Amino acid sequence: MTIRGSFFSILVSGLIATAASAETLPLPANLIGAASEPGAALLIGAEARTAYFPLADNFVTQKTQSFCGVASMVMVLNASGVPAPAVPEYEPYRTFTQDNLLDARTDAIVPRETILKQGMTLDQLGGVLATQPLSVTVRHAGDTTLDAFRNEARDHLASPGQFVVINYLRKALGQETGGHISPLAAYDAEEDRFLILDVARYKYPPVWVKADELFAAMNTPDKDNANKTRGYVLVTKKGD
Amino acid sequence: MTIRGSFFSILVSGLIATAASAETLPLPANLIGAASEPGAALLIGAEARTAYFPLADNFVTQKTQSFCGVASMVMVLNASGVPAPAVPEYEPYRTFTQDNLLDARTDAIVPRETILKQGMTLDQLGGVLATQPLSVTVRHAGDTTLDAFRNEARDHLASPGQFVVINYLRKALGQETGGHISPLAAYDAEEDRFLILDVARYKYPPVWVKADELFAAMNTPDKDNANKTRGYVLVTKKGD
Ligand SMILES: [Ca+2]
Ligand SMILES: [Ca+2]
Ligand SMILES: [Ca+2]
Ligand SMILES: [Ca+2]
Repeated sequence: MTIRGSFFSILVSGLIATAASAETLPLPANLIGAASEPGAALLIGAEARTAYFPLADNFVTQKTQSFCGVASMVMVLNASGVPAPAVPEYEPYRTFTQDNLLDARTDAIVPRETILKQGMTLDQLGGVLATQPLSVTVRHAGDTTLDAFRNEARDHLASPGQFVVINYLRKALGQETGGHISPLAAYDAEEDRFLILDVARYKYPPVWVKADELFAAMNTPDKDNANKTRGYVLVTKKGD
Repeated sequence: MTIRGSFFSILVSGLIATAASAETLPLPANLIGAASEPGAALLIGAEARTAYFPLADNFVTQKTQSFCGVASMVMVLNASGVPAPAVPEYEPYRTFTQDNLLDARTDAIVPRETILKQGMTLDQLGGVLATQPLSVTVRHAGDTTLDAFRNEARDHLASPGQFVVINYLRKALGQETGGHISPLAAYDAEEDRFLILDVARYKYPPVWVKADELFAAMNTPDKDNANKTRGYVLVTKKGD
C-alpha cells in the first residue's frame, strides 16, 4: 500500500510538473505552477484576482534575459489602458511593446545600455513607471513588513486599474537564480499565496508562491542598488 | 427611476468596455471581453477550460498583421510542451517563437513570403502544425455541423494536451473585418460561448462568442483557399 501510494504520488507530481511545458525548468516543491491542476484551482478560488484578467490578456515574454523590468512595465501599461504609442507593424493600432517604451525621458532614469547589460533596480522601475499617467509607490521590503505587504498587495490585486510589480531574488524561492522582476496577478487567502506572472516564460511558468517566502525573496540586498533591499511597486492608473 | 437605471447601465457598460485596454477597438454587443466582469465570471464558471491555463501562460501578440496563424501555432506548441527550438537571446533555454517556427519544411507547405503577404489558410495551418509531433485534424465548417463542432471543440478544451485553433471571418462576428486565426481556450455551457484568445492583441481583447455565431463565422468561403469554407483544427499532442 505504501509503495503503491508513493508510486502514484510520484506519477501525479510528474504529470503536474510537465503541465505547463516540457521545456521550462522544473519547479521546486514550494512553488505551484499556474497551469497545474492545483494552480488552476487556486485562480478559480482566489480572493483577489481583478488584476489577473487584464494582465493575462497582455502577458509577454521578456525579449532579452535582462528585460524582465521592461516586459513587466509593458504588461502593466497595456493592462491599465493608458494611452499607448504607435507601432509601425500595427498601424493604425497602438500598443506598448518592449521596443517603444524606452526613450530619452526614461534614459534619464536608467539608460537603455544599462538595462541591456544588467537590467533595472526597483527604484529605476518605479521611476520609469512614473513617467506614465500612473500613481506609483515604491516599497523596499526592508522598510515594511510581511503583513503590510500582504494587505496592500491583496488590496491592489482586487481593484480595477491597480497593479503590483515585484523585484525579488529567485534563489530565495528555490529558482535559478538572480534578481528578477515580474507582475503579481492574484492572491489566494486560504493558501496565503500570490500568483507571479513570470515574464521569463522560456525559463519558468507562472507560479503561486507563499506570501512569507515571496516577502523573504524581496527582503534581499541588491548590489546594483547600493545594497538597498528589493521590494515591490504599487501602481494605480490616474483617474481610477 | 428609469432614467437613473439607464444612466447606471451606461456607466457600468462603459467601465466594462474599458477594462481590457483603452486602446483596442470597442467590441460589438454580441461579444464579451475576457477581462470584463461578465467575461471573468464566464472563465470561473466554464465547463471546459483545461486548455485555457497553458495557453494563457503562452499568450502572444502576432508580430505582423498577417502572422495570426504563426502566433496561434506558437501558443499551441509552447502550451503542448513539444520539444522547442533554440533562441539565441534565451540560451540555454528553448521555446517556440514567431521567428523560429518556419523553416524549409514549412516553406514546402506555405512559403514565408506568402504568409507575410496574405497570411495562411486553414489547410496550410493544419499542414504546418502536422510537421510537429502533434495529431492534427482539419475541419472545414462546410463539411460539418454546429453540434459536431461544439461537441468536439468542448471535448478538446477539457482535455490535457489537446487544443483547437479556429479560422473565421471577423466581419461575421461584428468585428473589423477579414479572415483571422486564433486559438480557442474555454467553453461555457450555460451561455453556449467559446473563449477566443485573439492574437491581434493590439486590436481586440480576447472575447467570449456564442457557438452558433462562431460557427457561422467559420462557415464562410475563403478566396485564398479555392473558396473552401474556413473552420477549425483539432490538435492532440502525440502520446497524450
Ligand atoms: Ca481561496
Ligand atoms: Ca484599492
Ligand atoms: Ca458555466
Ligand atoms: Ca479528449
